[in-house]
Amino acid sequence: MNIPKSRNITWSHSDIKRSDREQRNGHKGAILWFTGLSGSGKSTLAKRVEKALFARGCQVYVLDGDNIRFGLNRDLGFSPEDRTENIRRIGEVAKLMMDAGMITLTAFISPYRRDRDANRELVPEGDFLEIFCKCDLAECERRDPKGLYKKARAGEIPQFTGISAPYEEPLNPELVVATDEHSPDECVQLVLDELVRRGIVPAEVAAPRD
Amino acid sequence: MNIPKSRNITWSHSDIKRSDREQRNGHKGAILWFTGLSGSGKSTLAKRVEKALFARGCQVYVLDGDNIRFGLNRDLGFSPEDRTENIRRIGEVAKLMMDAGMITLTAFISPYRRDRDANRELVPEGDFLEIFCKCDLAECERRDPKGLYKKARAGEIPQFTGISAPYEEPLNPELVVATDEHSPDECVQLVLDELVRRGIVPAEVAAPRD
Repeated sequence: MNIPKSRNITWSHSDIKRSDREQRNGHKGAILWFTGLSGSGKSTLAKRVEKALFARGCQVYVLDGDNIRFGLNRDLGFSPEDRTENIRRIGEVAKLMMDAGMITLTAFISPYRRDRDANRELVPEGDFLEIFCKCDLAECERRDPKGLYKKARAGEIPQFTGISAPYEEPLNPELVVATDEHSPDECVQLVLDELVRRGIVPAEVAAPRD
Repeated sequence: MNIPKSRNITWSHSDIKRSDREQRNGHKGAILWFTGLSGSGKSTLAKRVEKALFARGCQVYVLDGDNIRFGLNRDLGFSPEDRTENIRRIGEVAKLMMDAGMITLTAFISPYRRDRDANRELVPEGDFLEIFCKCDLAECERRDPKGLYKKARAGEIPQFTGISAPYEEPLNPELVVATDEHSPDECVQLVLDELVRRGIVPAEVAAPRD
Protein backbone atom coordinates (compact mmCIF):
# COMPACT_ATOMS: atom_id res chain seq x y z
CA MET A 1 0.00 0.00 0.00
CA ASN A 2 2.77 2.40 0.86
CA ILE A 3 4.95 1.72 -2.17
CA PRO A 4 4.53 4.14 -5.05
CA LYS A 5 4.06 2.60 -8.47
CA SER A 6 7.04 4.50 -9.82
CA ARG A 7 10.52 3.22 -9.25
CA ASN A 8 13.74 5.21 -9.42
CA ILE A 9 12.41 8.15 -7.50
CA THR A 10 13.88 9.67 -4.37
CA TRP A 11 12.37 11.99 -1.82
CA SER A 12 14.03 15.37 -1.85
CA HIS A 13 13.41 17.94 0.82
CA SER A 14 13.22 21.60 0.11
CA ASP A 15 15.66 23.89 1.84
CA ILE A 16 12.67 25.83 3.09
CA LYS A 17 11.00 23.87 5.83
CA ARG A 18 7.39 24.01 6.87
CA SER A 19 8.52 25.41 10.20
CA ASP A 20 10.26 28.29 8.40
CA ARG A 21 7.00 29.12 6.67
CA GLU A 22 4.99 28.83 9.87
CA GLN A 23 7.38 31.10 11.71
CA ARG A 24 6.99 33.77 9.08
CA ASN A 25 3.21 33.38 8.85
CA GLY A 26 2.73 33.57 12.59
CA HIS A 27 0.59 30.43 12.76
CA LYS A 28 0.88 26.73 12.08
CA GLY A 29 -0.22 24.93 8.98
CA ALA A 30 -3.10 22.51 9.43
CA ILE A 31 -5.82 20.64 7.61
CA LEU A 32 -9.37 21.39 8.72
CA TRP A 33 -11.38 18.57 7.23
CA PHE A 34 -15.06 19.54 7.22
CA THR A 35 -17.35 16.57 6.67
CA GLY A 36 -21.13 16.20 6.67
CA LEU A 37 -24.20 15.75 4.54
CA SER A 38 -24.97 17.88 1.53
CA GLY A 39 -26.61 21.01 2.91
CA SER A 40 -25.04 20.63 6.35
CA GLY A 41 -23.15 23.88 5.86
CA LYS A 42 -19.59 22.61 5.30
CA SER A 43 -18.70 24.91 2.46
CA THR A 44 -20.44 27.93 3.96
CA LEU A 45 -18.73 27.42 7.30
CA ALA A 46 -15.34 26.76 5.71
CA LYS A 47 -15.58 29.98 3.73
CA ARG A 48 -16.63 31.99 6.77
CA VAL A 49 -13.70 30.56 8.73
CA GLU A 50 -11.41 31.36 5.79
CA LYS A 51 -12.65 34.92 5.74
CA ALA A 52 -12.19 35.30 9.50
CA LEU A 53 -8.67 33.86 9.42
CA PHE A 54 -7.66 35.89 6.39
CA ALA A 55 -8.89 39.06 8.06
CA ARG A 56 -6.62 38.18 10.97
CA GLY A 57 -3.56 37.81 8.76
CA CYS A 58 -3.44 34.04 8.25
CA GLN A 59 -2.46 32.16 5.13
CA VAL A 60 -5.61 30.14 4.52
CA TYR A 61 -7.35 28.43 1.61
CA VAL A 62 -10.51 26.42 1.02
CA LEU A 63 -10.61 23.36 -1.20
CA ASP A 64 -14.19 22.42 -1.89
CA GLY A 65 -16.13 19.91 -3.90
CA ASP A 66 -17.22 22.37 -6.46
CA ASN A 67 -13.90 23.83 -7.48
CA ILE A 68 -11.95 20.57 -7.18
CA ARG A 69 -14.43 18.69 -9.33
CA PHE A 70 -14.06 21.20 -12.15
CA GLY A 71 -10.30 20.76 -12.13
CA LEU A 72 -8.12 18.15 -10.48
CA ASN A 73 -10.89 15.59 -10.15
CA ARG A 74 -12.87 16.31 -13.28
CA ASP A 75 -12.24 12.72 -14.37
CA LEU A 76 -14.06 11.32 -11.35
CA GLY A 77 -17.76 10.63 -10.76
CA PHE A 78 -19.69 9.53 -7.70
CA SER A 79 -19.19 5.78 -7.67
CA PRO A 80 -17.72 4.45 -4.41
CA GLU A 81 -14.33 3.98 -6.11
CA ASP A 82 -14.36 7.46 -7.60
CA ARG A 83 -15.45 8.99 -4.29
CA THR A 84 -12.51 7.30 -2.60
CA GLU A 85 -10.04 8.51 -5.22
CA ASN A 86 -11.61 11.98 -5.04
CA ILE A 87 -10.99 12.16 -1.31
CA ARG A 88 -7.51 10.64 -1.58
CA ARG A 89 -6.33 13.27 -4.04
CA ILE A 90 -7.83 16.07 -1.98
CA GLY A 91 -6.00 14.78 1.08
CA GLU A 92 -2.74 14.86 -0.83
CA VAL A 93 -3.32 18.38 -2.09
CA ALA A 94 -4.28 19.55 1.39
CA LYS A 95 -1.05 17.99 2.67
CA LEU A 96 0.99 19.91 0.10
CA MET A 97 -0.74 23.18 0.94
CA MET A 98 -0.24 22.58 4.65
CA ASP A 99 3.42 21.92 3.93
CA ALA A 100 3.45 25.26 2.15
CA GLY A 101 2.41 26.79 5.48
CA MET A 102 -1.30 27.22 4.91
CA ILE A 103 -4.29 26.44 7.04
CA THR A 104 -6.09 24.36 4.46
CA LEU A 105 -9.83 23.88 4.79
CA THR A 106 -11.54 21.12 2.85
CA ALA A 107 -15.31 21.00 2.47
CA PHE A 108 -16.43 17.70 1.05
CA ILE A 109 -19.18 15.32 2.04
CA SER A 110 -16.43 12.65 2.32
CA PRO A 111 -18.99 10.02 3.40
CA TYR A 112 -16.62 7.11 4.05
CA ARG A 113 -14.87 6.87 7.38
CA ARG A 114 -11.94 4.93 5.97
CA ASP A 115 -11.26 7.61 3.34
CA ARG A 116 -11.15 10.34 5.96
CA ASP A 117 -8.99 8.19 8.22
CA ALA A 118 -6.58 7.52 5.37
CA ASN A 119 -6.09 11.25 4.92
CA ARG A 120 -5.58 11.71 8.63
CA GLU A 121 -2.79 9.13 8.39
CA LEU A 122 -1.02 11.16 5.69
CA VAL A 123 0.07 13.85 8.11
CA PRO A 124 1.64 14.08 11.56
CA GLU A 125 -0.57 13.69 14.62
CA GLY A 126 -2.41 16.89 15.41
CA ASP A 127 -2.22 18.38 11.93
CA PHE A 128 -5.53 16.95 10.75
CA LEU A 129 -8.72 18.21 12.38
CA GLU A 130 -11.86 16.39 11.42
CA ILE A 131 -14.74 18.82 11.85
CA PHE A 132 -18.14 17.20 11.71
CA CYS A 133 -20.83 19.55 10.45
CA LYS A 134 -23.70 17.88 12.24
CA CYS A 135 -27.13 18.56 10.86
CA ASP A 136 -30.25 16.41 10.68
CA LEU A 137 -30.95 14.96 7.28
CA ALA A 138 -34.45 16.44 7.47
CA GLU A 139 -32.98 19.91 8.02
CA CYS A 140 -30.45 19.45 5.21
CA GLU A 141 -33.30 18.42 2.95
CA ARG A 142 -35.36 21.39 4.04
CA ARG A 143 -32.48 23.76 3.25
CA ASP A 144 -31.63 21.99 -0.01
CA PRO A 145 -29.57 24.99 -1.20
CA LYS A 146 -28.80 23.46 -4.58
CA GLY A 147 -32.06 21.61 -5.10
CA LEU A 148 -30.18 18.32 -5.01
CA TYR A 149 -32.34 16.50 -2.47
CA LYS A 150 -35.40 17.20 -4.56
CA LYS A 151 -33.66 15.71 -7.58
CA ALA A 152 -32.39 12.78 -5.54
CA ARG A 153 -35.88 12.04 -4.20
CA ALA A 154 -37.15 12.15 -7.76
CA GLY A 155 -34.54 9.54 -8.67
CA GLU A 156 -32.66 11.95 -10.91
CA ILE A 157 -29.38 11.70 -8.96
CA PRO A 158 -28.10 8.19 -8.28
CA GLN A 159 -25.88 7.46 -5.28
CA PHE A 160 -26.87 10.58 -3.39
CA THR A 161 -25.44 10.64 0.12
CA GLY A 162 -28.10 10.32 2.80
CA ILE A 163 -30.75 9.19 0.32
CA SER A 164 -29.32 6.40 -1.80
CA ALA A 165 -25.72 6.27 -0.60
CA PRO A 166 -24.36 6.02 2.94
CA TYR A 167 -22.88 8.71 5.17
CA GLU A 168 -20.63 7.35 7.89
CA GLU A 169 -20.53 9.79 10.80
CA PRO A 170 -17.13 10.48 12.37
CA LEU A 171 -16.44 8.43 15.48
CA ASN A 172 -13.87 10.71 17.08
CA PRO A 173 -13.86 14.05 15.29
CA GLU A 174 -11.71 16.82 16.71
CA LEU A 175 -14.75 19.07 16.64
CA VAL A 176 -18.48 18.74 16.16
CA VAL A 177 -20.30 21.82 14.92
CA ALA A 178 -24.06 21.44 15.05
CA THR A 179 -24.97 23.80 12.25
CA ASP A 180 -28.67 23.41 12.99
CA GLU A 181 -28.22 24.56 16.59
CA HIS A 182 -25.78 27.46 16.33
CA SER A 183 -25.81 30.68 14.35
CA PRO A 184 -23.24 30.98 11.57
CA ASP A 185 -21.14 33.36 13.68
CA GLU A 186 -21.20 30.93 16.59
CA CYS A 187 -20.10 28.11 14.32
CA VAL A 188 -17.13 30.17 13.10
CA GLN A 189 -16.16 31.01 16.67
CA LEU A 190 -16.26 27.33 17.67
CA VAL A 191 -13.72 26.55 14.96
CA LEU A 192 -11.49 29.53 15.81
CA ASP A 193 -11.52 28.59 19.50
CA GLU A 194 -10.50 25.04 18.64
CA LEU A 195 -7.59 26.35 16.56
CA VAL A 196 -6.38 28.41 19.50
CA ARG A 197 -6.84 25.55 21.94
CA ARG A 198 -4.61 23.41 19.74
CA GLY A 199 -1.97 26.08 19.29
CA ILE A 200 -2.52 26.37 15.56
CA VAL A 201 -3.25 30.08 15.71
CA PRO A 202 -2.37 32.54 18.49
CA ALA A 203 -5.17 33.53 20.88
CA GLU A 204 -5.47 37.08 19.59
CA VAL A 205 -6.43 35.69 16.18
CA ALA A 206 -9.60 34.15 17.57
CA ALA A 207 -10.76 37.12 19.61
CA PRO A 208 -14.24 38.17 18.53
CA ARG A 209 -14.35 41.26 16.31
CA ASP A 210 -16.99 43.36 14.71
CA MET B 1 -13.23 18.02 -23.17
CA ASN B 2 -14.20 20.88 -20.94
CA ILE B 3 -17.19 19.19 -19.33
CA PRO B 4 -16.48 17.57 -15.98
CA LYS B 5 -17.70 14.01 -15.55
CA SER B 6 -19.70 14.99 -12.49
CA ARG B 7 -23.10 16.57 -12.89
CA ASN B 8 -24.97 18.64 -10.33
CA ILE B 9 -21.97 20.70 -9.29
CA THR B 10 -21.67 24.45 -9.34
CA TRP B 11 -18.64 26.68 -9.21
CA SER B 12 -18.55 28.67 -6.01
CA HIS B 13 -16.15 31.52 -5.49
CA SER B 14 -14.49 32.19 -2.20
CA ASP B 15 -15.05 35.57 -0.62
CA ILE B 16 -11.27 35.92 -0.52
CA LYS B 17 -10.02 36.65 -3.98
CA ARG B 18 -6.62 35.89 -5.39
CA SER B 19 -6.05 39.62 -5.71
CA ASP B 20 -6.69 40.02 -1.96
CA ARG B 21 -4.01 37.45 -1.26
CA GLU B 22 -1.59 39.02 -3.71
CA GLN B 23 -2.08 42.44 -2.21
CA ARG B 24 -1.23 41.12 1.22
CA ASN B 25 1.72 39.06 0.02
CA GLY B 26 3.23 41.94 -1.93
CA HIS B 27 3.66 39.94 -5.11
CA LYS B 28 1.53 38.14 -7.67
CA GLY B 29 0.82 34.45 -7.80
CA ALA B 30 2.27 32.61 -10.77
CA ILE B 31 3.22 29.21 -12.05
CA LEU B 32 6.87 28.75 -12.98
CA TRP B 33 6.87 25.58 -15.01
CA PHE B 34 10.45 24.26 -15.22
CA THR B 35 10.90 21.65 -17.95
CA GLY B 36 13.92 19.81 -19.26
CA LEU B 37 15.76 16.51 -19.34
CA SER B 38 16.57 14.52 -16.24
CA GLY B 39 19.77 16.06 -14.87
CA SER B 40 19.18 19.41 -16.57
CA GLY B 41 18.93 21.08 -13.19
CA LYS B 42 15.18 21.77 -12.97
CA SER B 43 14.71 20.75 -9.37
CA THR B 44 17.97 22.30 -8.18
CA LEU B 45 17.19 25.59 -9.90
CA ALA B 46 13.59 25.60 -8.68
CA LYS B 47 14.74 25.10 -5.10
CA ARG B 48 17.35 27.83 -5.35
CA VAL B 49 14.75 30.20 -6.74
CA GLU B 50 12.38 29.18 -3.95
CA LYS B 51 15.05 29.90 -1.37
CA ALA B 52 15.84 33.28 -2.91
CA LEU B 53 12.17 34.29 -3.09
CA PHE B 54 11.43 33.06 0.41
CA ALA B 55 14.38 35.03 1.77
CA ARG B 56 12.83 38.09 0.14
CA GLY B 57 9.48 37.56 1.82
CA CYS B 58 7.52 35.80 -0.91
CA GLN B 59 4.98 33.01 -0.55
CA VAL B 60 6.56 30.34 -2.70
CA TYR B 61 6.46 26.56 -3.02
CA VAL B 62 8.07 23.89 -5.18
CA LEU B 63 6.17 20.91 -6.53
CA ASP B 64 8.58 18.36 -7.87
CA GLY B 65 8.49 14.94 -9.38
CA ASP B 66 9.90 13.29 -6.33
CA ASN B 67 7.45 14.54 -3.74
CA ILE B 68 4.41 14.43 -6.02
CA ARG B 69 5.09 10.88 -7.06
CA PHE B 70 5.17 9.70 -3.46
CA GLY B 71 1.78 11.26 -2.81
CA LEU B 72 -0.81 12.62 -5.19
CA ASN B 73 0.46 10.66 -8.18
CA ARG B 74 1.63 7.50 -6.49
CA ASP B 75 -0.84 5.56 -8.65
CA LEU B 76 0.89 6.65 -11.85
CA GLY B 77 3.86 5.19 -13.70
CA PHE B 78 5.81 6.38 -16.73
CA SER B 79 3.67 5.23 -19.65
CA PRO B 80 2.71 8.03 -22.02
CA GLU B 81 -0.86 8.02 -20.60
CA ASP B 82 0.37 8.11 -17.02
CA ARG B 83 2.87 10.86 -17.80
CA THR B 84 0.08 12.94 -19.28
CA GLU B 85 -2.18 12.39 -16.26
CA ASN B 86 0.79 13.12 -13.97
CA ILE B 87 1.34 16.49 -15.61
CA ARG B 88 -2.38 17.28 -15.79
CA ARG B 89 -2.83 16.81 -12.04
CA ILE B 90 0.27 18.84 -11.25
CA GLY B 91 -1.05 21.65 -13.41
CA GLU B 92 -4.30 21.63 -11.47
CA VAL B 93 -2.52 21.66 -8.12
CA ALA B 94 -0.25 24.48 -9.26
CA LYS B 95 -3.35 26.41 -10.32
CA LEU B 96 -4.90 25.98 -6.88
CA MET B 97 -1.71 27.08 -5.14
CA MET B 98 -1.41 30.07 -7.44
CA ASP B 99 -5.01 30.93 -6.62
CA ALA B 100 -3.98 30.74 -2.97
CA GLY B 101 -1.51 33.52 -3.76
CA MET B 102 1.68 31.53 -4.10
CA ILE B 103 4.43 31.60 -6.66
CA THR B 104 4.30 27.91 -7.47
CA LEU B 105 7.35 26.30 -9.03
CA THR B 106 7.03 22.92 -10.70
CA ALA B 107 10.07 20.85 -11.61
CA PHE B 108 9.12 17.96 -13.85
CA ILE B 109 10.62 16.62 -17.02
CA SER B 110 7.15 17.09 -18.59
CA PRO B 111 8.39 15.84 -21.95
CA TYR B 112 5.24 16.35 -24.01
CA ARG B 113 4.54 19.76 -25.48
CA ARG B 114 0.78 19.23 -25.52
CA ASP B 115 0.73 18.43 -21.80
CA ARG B 116 2.61 21.62 -20.94
CA ASP B 117 0.40 23.61 -23.30
CA ALA B 118 -2.73 22.15 -21.69
CA ASN B 119 -1.55 23.41 -18.31
CA ARG B 120 -0.79 26.82 -19.74
CA GLU B 121 -4.38 26.93 -20.95
CA LEU B 122 -5.69 26.31 -17.42
CA VAL B 123 -4.74 29.76 -16.22
CA PRO B 124 -5.04 33.36 -17.43
CA GLU B 125 -2.52 34.68 -19.94
CA GLY B 126 0.72 35.68 -18.26
CA ASP B 127 0.31 33.50 -15.18
CA PHE B 128 2.14 30.48 -16.62
CA LEU B 129 5.86 30.83 -17.30
CA GLU B 130 7.43 27.93 -19.11
CA ILE B 131 11.09 27.87 -18.15
CA PHE B 132 13.19 25.60 -20.30
CA CYS B 133 16.21 24.24 -18.46
CA LYS B 134 18.37 23.75 -21.51
CA CYS B 135 21.23 21.32 -21.17
CA ASP B 136 22.83 18.97 -23.66
CA LEU B 137 21.85 15.35 -23.25
CA ALA B 138 25.55 14.47 -23.09
CA GLU B 139 26.02 16.86 -20.17
CA CYS B 140 22.92 15.57 -18.38
CA GLU B 141 24.24 12.06 -18.82
CA ARG B 142 27.67 13.10 -17.55
CA ARG B 143 26.10 14.67 -14.44
CA ASP B 144 23.69 11.76 -13.92
CA PRO B 145 23.00 12.86 -10.31
CA LYS B 146 20.74 9.91 -9.57
CA GLY B 147 22.52 7.30 -11.69
CA LEU B 148 19.43 7.03 -13.87
CA TYR B 149 21.12 7.41 -17.25
CA LYS B 150 23.47 4.59 -16.41
CA LYS B 151 20.51 2.38 -15.57
CA ALA B 152 18.62 3.52 -18.65
CA ARG B 153 21.60 2.73 -20.90
CA ALA B 154 21.77 -0.68 -19.28
CA GLY B 155 18.14 -1.20 -20.20
CA GLU B 156 17.04 -1.23 -16.58
CA ILE B 157 14.65 1.72 -16.93
CA PRO B 158 12.17 1.55 -19.78
CA GLN B 159 10.75 4.72 -21.35
CA PHE B 160 13.53 6.96 -20.07
CA THR B 161 13.29 10.47 -21.48
CA GLY B 162 16.13 11.31 -23.87
CA ILE B 163 17.17 7.66 -24.18
CA SER B 164 14.12 5.56 -24.93
CA ALA B 165 11.32 8.13 -24.71
CA PRO B 166 11.01 11.51 -26.41
CA TYR B 167 11.57 14.98 -25.00
CA GLU B 168 9.78 17.72 -26.93
CA GLU B 169 11.58 21.02 -26.44
CA PRO B 170 9.44 24.10 -25.79
CA LEU B 171 8.76 26.16 -28.91
CA ASN B 172 8.06 29.48 -27.22
CA PRO B 173 9.10 29.28 -23.58
CA GLU B 174 8.90 32.44 -21.49
CA LEU B 175 12.50 31.83 -20.46
CA VAL B 176 15.39 29.62 -21.48
CA VAL B 177 18.01 28.95 -18.84
CA ALA B 178 21.07 27.18 -20.23
CA THR B 179 22.16 25.38 -17.09
CA ASP B 180 25.31 24.14 -18.80
CA GLU B 181 26.42 27.68 -19.63
CA HIS B 182 25.61 29.66 -16.49
CA SER B 183 26.57 29.27 -12.87
CA PRO B 184 23.79 28.30 -10.47
CA ASP B 185 23.66 31.85 -9.09
CA GLU B 186 23.39 33.27 -12.59
CA CYS B 187 20.55 30.88 -13.38
CA VAL B 188 18.65 32.03 -10.28
CA GLN B 189 19.18 35.67 -11.23
CA LEU B 190 17.84 35.05 -14.74
CA VAL B 191 14.61 33.74 -13.25
CA LEU B 192 14.30 36.55 -10.72
CA ASP B 193 14.91 39.16 -13.40
CA GLU B 194 12.18 37.62 -15.54
CA LEU B 195 9.74 37.75 -12.62
CA VAL B 196 10.46 41.45 -12.18
CA ARG B 197 10.20 42.14 -15.89
CA ARG B 198 6.73 40.57 -15.87
CA GLY B 199 5.60 42.42 -12.77
CA ILE B 200 5.20 39.26 -10.70
CA VAL B 201 7.55 40.44 -7.98
CA PRO B 202 8.67 44.00 -7.23
CA ALA B 203 12.12 45.01 -8.42
CA GLU B 204 13.66 45.15 -4.97
CA VAL B 205 12.92 41.46 -4.56
CA ALA B 206 15.25 40.56 -7.38
CA ALA B 207 18.14 42.78 -6.37
CA PRO B 208 21.30 40.71 -5.89
CA ARG B 209 22.19 40.04 -2.27
CA ASP B 210 24.98 38.34 -0.42
